[in-house]
Amino acid sequence: MRGVVMYAPGDVRVEERPDPRIEEPTDAIIRLTATCICGSDLWPYRGAEPVDHAPMGHEYVGVVEQIGPEVRTLKVGDFVVGSFWSSDNTCEICRDGYQAYCVHRTLMGLIGTQAEKARIPLADGTLVATPGMPEPDLIPSFLAASDVLGTGWFAAVAAEAGPGKTVAVVGDGAVGLCGVLAARELGAERIIAFSRHADRQALAREFGATDIVTERGEAGAARIKELTGGLGAHSVIEAVGTQEAMMQAIASTRPGGHVGFVGVSHDVAIPGDVLFGAGIHLHGGPAPVRRFLPELVRLIWDRAIDPGKVFDLVLPLDEAAEGYRAMDERRATKVMLSL
Amino acid sequence: MRGVVMYAPGDVRVEERPDPRIEEPTDAIIRLTATCICGSDLWPYRGAEPVDHAPMGHEYVGVVEQIGPEVRTLKVGDFVVGSFWSSDNTCEICRDGYQAYCVHRTLMGLIGTQAEKARIPLADGTLVATPGMPEPDLIPSFLAASDVLGTGWFAAVAAEAGPGKTVAVVGDGAVGLCGVLAARELGAERIIAFSRHADRQALAREFGATDIVTERGEAGAARIKELTGGLGAHSVIEAVGTQEAMMQAIASTRPGGHVGFVGVSHDVAIPGDVLFGAGIHLHGGPAPVRRFLPELVRLIWDRAIDPGKVFDLVLPLDEAAEGYRAMDERRATKVMLSL
Repeated sequence: MRGVVMYAPGDVRVEERPDPRIEEPTDAIIRLTATCICGSDLWPYRGAEPVDHAPMGHEYVGVVEQIGPEVRTLKVGDFVVGSFWSSDNTCEICRDGYQAYCVHRTLMGLIGTQAEKARIPLADGTLVATPGMPEPDLIPSFLAASDVLGTGWFAAVAAEAGPGKTVAVVGDGAVGLCGVLAARELGAERIIAFSRHADRQALAREFGATDIVTERGEAGAARIKELTGGLGAHSVIEAVGTQEAMMQAIASTRPGGHVGFVGVSHDVAIPGDVLFGAGIHLHGGPAPVRRFLPELVRLIWDRAIDPGKVFDLVLPLDEAAEGYRAMDERRATKVMLSL
Repeated sequence: MRGVVMYAPGDVRVEERPDPRIEEPTDAIIRLTATCICGSDLWPYRGAEPVDHAPMGHEYVGVVEQIGPEVRTLKVGDFVVGSFWSSDNTCEICRDGYQAYCVHRTLMGLIGTQAEKARIPLADGTLVATPGMPEPDLIPSFLAASDVLGTGWFAAVAAEAGPGKTVAVVGDGAVGLCGVLAARELGAERIIAFSRHADRQALAREFGATDIVTERGEAGAARIKELTGGLGAHSVIEAVGTQEAMMQAIASTRPGGHVGFVGVSHDVAIPGDVLFGAGIHLHGGPAPVRRFLPELVRLIWDRAIDPGKVFDLVLPLDEAAEGYRAMDERRATKVMLSL
């Protein structure tokens, strides 16, 4: 089968890779309908993480082609959405809703889903089937649920977005935009998106943002305070992963408020005295997307939400290298690769 | 009146200071029945924070001697307990339960309650009166409520200690020990105290600890994992304020679990990648003691809890310098100064 391999930073190729096969009785093999490039794939692409001939990709939707003898809830032909961590969904950590930390988890990025097929470990605990074969126009939204929507949703839940709350969102990439959408769905009263890009501002507004702030860092936090009677937002989503973004998020939050952070941390160190003085709640990490997938699949199937709009460039898998370039150069927010 | 002044690190004196007087119509003047030395007073005493002729003390119980014309809920003669932050208890932040961040707060440490009398700003929102004049043996427990109990209680609440939970407590000082007591009162199933001191281990067990762990740092966290089926504790209290204690707390917590931190941070920096990978909730800072005071006063008045046992040395105010030495040299866990 064909699949994406990152030879080195900046060097992405689509080449022949071995077909996956059932290795464990709980595995499923899926034929991908679509996959995509993640903001986190740009870290190695830009040399900020080591990479050497790595299969890429951890987001996926597709059709079940084969199942192991112990797979119970799925059948060949099902259209499925899965998370970027495989999980048994039965261990104590999964039952608490933290499937990204399942005691039997596997990182799907090691398998590499930017490919024609993929082996999904712990298929019952990882995949969620849609009620039927989706209309083609729903594919991007289901694909978004696999990571960026699930991650933005987790961030909004971690930030305790909800009725009566003012939510600020640091980061106007696909995850941040999905965080805006999630905050709206969770009933937030006011949603402030930090953004300097007209196209992303427009999508943020479409997803539910009530205010746009263009300042960053301390000035950005000061603007949030101005907009909230000097107190700060109740809930802040951090969807970048840099020191500036984390400090901006903390400084934008009122005492007793909540920061939900999902940007993959790079060279971030949170000063203890700042955190002690801030009096906020801080929660985040890799999103337990599987917790939210049943609800997200239902909302998308019912056409209640349209997170697929975060994909502003669709390319065939064979043009993955152009997709990476487009995201790296910020010509695209989020690139879908079709098969 | 007499009051404690820290001239410089290690140099504590009791000397004549001006009597306090009503400055704002919402002030009260109290005559102290007892005050005490806080673990946080040791930071300047040891030179870890700058200090220069500072009045000391922020914990206090006493009798109302005078009230300003706008004080409504208190009367002269009331026995009162207050928090180390004054608060109006009516602003939006106070109503959310974060009185330590009241928009009108004053730090009582700037006033200095290691003295015969003290001015209490925002008396209605800061002080809680007991139902009557307490028996003398209850004084230490009410004094504990003013800071160490309120702080340990907040840490246990921030760590979401409760029924079915395993709670680990980092720090066996007065706050950590009160955290053990709070976890028990909140219904925790299992309470693991980190301690290497026989006397503190004994009090921890008396307050509700079911297990004692003597290892620290990574070894301590590894021991917690062993005791919890490899997963870590649900709830961890951090009551020290050092880098080692914070990292030990984070590493002892299971994914999705909660760290409540109340140790005053000194040179702590939390690596973002560690926090991202841990998947825990982190909440803390100066405790909003006022939130808990009505309940704590009731529990003490009813003799349901006995947090006053953290005081293992009682000295007259005039011997404050010896009290500081005893705590600095770890000859005492917590020193009460009587008047």
